[in-house]
Amino acid sequence: MLNQLSKKSLKLHKQNKGKIEVNSKVPLDSIDALSWAYSPGVAAPCKAIEENHEAAYDYTAKGNMVAVVTDGSAVLGLGNIGPRAAMPVMEGKSALFKEFAGVDAFPICLNTQDPEEIIDTIKNIAPGFGGINLEDIASPQCVEIENRLKDELDIPVFHDDQHGTAIVTLAALINSCKLTGKKLKDLKVVLSGTGAAGASIARILKASGVRSIVANKKDGVVTKSKIASYDSVVTALLEDKIIDSPEDNTTFESLFDHADVFVGVSVGDIVTKEMIQRMNSKPFIFAMANPDPEIKPAVALEAGAHVIGTGRSDYPNQINNVLAFPGIFKGALEARASNITENMKIAAAKGIANVIHDKDLSPDYIIPSPFDNRVVDAVKEAVREQAKGEKLEL
Amino acid sequence: MLNQLSKKSLKLHKQNKGKIEVNSKVPLDSIDALSWAYSPGVAAPCKAIEENHEAAYDYTAKGNMVAVVTDGSAVLGLGNIGPRAAMPVMEGKSALFKEFAGVDAFPICLNTQDPEEIIDTIKNIAPGFGGINLEDIASPQCVEIENRLKDELDIPVFHDDQHGTAIVTLAALINSCKLTGKKLKDLKVVLSGTGAAGASIARILKASGVRSIVANKKDGVVTKSKIASYDSVVTALLEDKIIDSPEDNTTFESLFDHADVFVGVSVGDIVTKEMIQRMNSKPFIFAMANPDPEIKPAVALEAGAHVIGTGRSDYPNQINNVLAFPGIFKGALEARASNITENMKIAAAKGIANVIHDKDLSPDYIIPSPFDNRVVDAVKEAVREQAKGEKLEL
Repeated sequence: MLNQLSKKSLKLHKQNKGKIEVNSKVPLDSIDALSWAYSPGVAAPCKAIEENHEAAYDYTAKGNMVAVVTDGSAVLGLGNIGPRAAMPVMEGKSALFKEFAGVDAFPICLNTQDPEEIIDTIKNIAPGFGGINLEDIASPQCVEIENRLKDELDIPVFHDDQHGTAIVTLAALINSCKLTGKKLKDLKVVLSGTGAAGASIARILKASGVRSIVANKKDGVVTKSKIASYDSVVTALLEDKIIDSPEDNTTFESLFDHADVFVGVSVGDIVTKEMIQRMNSKPFIFAMANPDPEIKPAVALEAGAHVIGTGRSDYPNQINNVLAFPGIFKGALEARASNITENMKIAAAKGIANVIHDKDLSPDYIIPSPFDNRVVDAVKEAVREQAKGEKLEL
Repeated sequence: MLNQLSKKSLKLHKQNKGKIEVNSKVPLDSIDALSWAYSPGVAAPCKAIEENHEAAYDYTAKGNMVAVVTDGSAVLGLGNIGPRAAMPVMEGKSALFKEFAGVDAFPICLNTQDPEEIIDTIKNIAPGFGGINLEDIASPQCVEIENRLKDELDIPVFHDDQHGTAIVTLAALINSCKLTGKKLKDLKVVLSGTGAAGASIARILKASGVRSIVANKKDGVVTKSKIASYDSVVTALLEDKIIDSPEDNTTFESLFDHADVFVGVSVGDIVTKEMIQRMNSKPFIFAMANPDPEIKPAVALEAGAHVIGTGRSDYPNQINNVLAFPGIFKGALEARASNITENMKIAAAKGIANVIHDKDLSPDYIIPSPFDNRVVDAVKEAVREQAKGEKLEL
C-alpha cells in the first residue's frame, strides 16, 4: 500500500508529466525574430564559434548548462533500478540546479552500465555542456569514470554522490569544531561505509587536516590484512594512507574508544548507546543513512552526543547535498574552471559553514537550512575565488 | 564586415547567452515540496517506472521531450563546422519546437562524426527522450544513421534535413495540382540535387503517386551508366527505381523538355529562362537553394512559371521546414508512435496543404505562412490519426 507521501509524489509527477521543461529565451514570433534567432542570421554566431570555440560561452547556453548523467546503477536508496526508473531523480536534480542556483541542468539517463561506454558517451555529448554532474553511479566504477572524465574533458566533472555529502559533512565538522573548541587535526574519526560517499568523506577530511580516520564496512573493520578482498576504492583509501589500519580483530565497537566523531553513510541502527559512551566528551555524530540513521538522534543524545546530524529533514542539522552542488557548479561555471579540485570542494565546505555566524552556532544549528538563500551565494563565491586563484597559479 | 542581420543575431545570442533554458515545472520552495518532487517521495515514481517502463510517459518529461542531435557535419549553408559551432542552430531548432508546438526539445552536439559512434551514443542517451530529431548530418551517412536508429530504437527518429523539406515540397505540389487541375501521377519532375533532402523528396513524391522523376547533380544528369561513381544514397534512388535513368549524354537543359515541375535543392542560379520555356504549360518551380535560389523568382515568372516557391521568407510560398517538424513530432508523440513512417509524412504534407481552402489558393499562396497557427494542429492531427491507424493494423 502506498503511503501519503508516495501518493502525493505520484500525483505531482503525473499532473505535470515530469518536472522539467525546455524553454526559449528569445522571441520567435515574427519573420524578423526567426531570421535573428534561426536562419539565416544564426550563421553569424556559428561562424564566430567555428573560429574560436571559446565563443560558445558567449553565444550559446553552454556556459550555464550542466548535464546530470546517470546509469541508474545506484539510485538513492533504491539500488540498481536502471536509467528509465532513475529519470524522476535526475529531473528532480536538474530542477534543483535551476531553482537553487539559476543553473540550467538537463537529465541524461544512459542505457549502459559499462564504464568505457559511459565515458565515451559523455565525452561525445560534452560539447554543448559547461559541466557534467555524475549522479547515482555505483561504486567503485564511479571513481574510475569520474577520474577518467576529469582527465579527458576540459569542463568540470563532479560525482555528487561522492563529493556532495563529503563537502556538507566537512562543513558540519568545521562548525562543530568552532562550537566546541576542538581542532580538526586532533579529531579521531570513525567512518561507517566506504562506498562512493564514504571514500570521498575520508579524503576531504584528510585534505582538511584530520589525521586519524578508521573505517568499518559491511564485512567488518577495514584493515590492511584484508586488502585483497577490497574493491579498488577501499584499497586506495588504505594505500594512499587516507584511513588508518587498526590491529587485526579490532571490532566495530572498539573503534569508538576515544573517538571524537562518528560519520555514517551506511545502514540504519548499527550504532548503540554503548558505542557513543566509549567516545571522548562532546562527540559529534553524523548518522546519515536514509531513511533510518545509524543511530536514532534521541538515543545518541541520551548517550551524550553533543552534535547530531542526519540525512533527514525532520531532524536538526540535515546533511543535504543541495547545500553544495548548486553553488559549486555555479562558482565553477562563473570562473570557467576546467576542473573542480579538492581545494574548491574545501572552499565550498567553508562557504557553507561560514553562513552561520559564530554567535548563532548551537548543537542544533551547525548546518544552515537548504532554504537559507545565503548559502548558494556563499558557496559560489568561495568556489569561484578558489578557482580563480588556482588559474593564476597555473 | 558584418552585415546588419549578423550584428543583430550576434547581439541577440550574446545578450541572452544562447537561446534555451531548462526550467522546473514544479515548486521546490519548502521541505514538503522537496519531499514530493525529490527525496524521499521521488522513490514512488521511480519504482513505478522500474515495474513498468511505459510509466515513464506518465511520470517524467520523456513523452514530450525530443533530442535535437547533430554531429555538425552539414550545418545549414555552412558545411562541416563541427558540433561546437553547430550549437546555435540546434538551440534555435529546440526553441522552435517549443514555441511552435509546445514540444520540449534539447540540443545534443556530438563530438564525433563516426556513424557507428553516433548511433551508439544516441542509443545510449535515448531512455530519457520520446523522440530523436537528427539535424544537419551529412549525406550519405545520415541515411544509414537514421535507418539504423529507426530499427534499433523504440521511439520515433526523424532526420529533418531529409524529410522536412520533402514534406513541405509535397504539400506545395499537392496545392499546385489543386490550383491547376494537374494530377500527381501525370507530372514529370526534374530534381536538382540528390543529397539528403533531394533523395527524400524523390522518395516521398514517388510514394505519393508521381511516376516520372529525373535528377541532376553536381557532376551532371544522374544515369545508370554512371552508377559506380555515385554514393549509396544516389545509387539507391536508381536501384529502387525512385528516379528514372535518361539516355547517356542527356543534358541538364534537355531534362526540362515537357517537364511539369522543377525541384531544386542544390545551388543558386543554375536554371535559365530558356530551360523554363522548354517545360509544359503552367510549370511549377520550387527553387529552394539558399540564399540564392536555382533561378530568381522574377526570371522564372517572366519565363512562364505558374507557381514559384523558394526557401526564402521574402518571396511568396516559402518551403520552410518549420511548417512540418513541430507538428510531426507532436503528433507522433501524442500517438506514442514508435516510428515516423512514409505514410505519416505524407499525411503531414496533406495536413499542411489542407490548411489553405481551395477557394483561397493562388499562385502566390499554395503554402501557408509559418506563423499561421492552424498549421501545427493540422499536421499534428493528420500525423496522429495516421499513426493510430497504423498501430491498429499491426
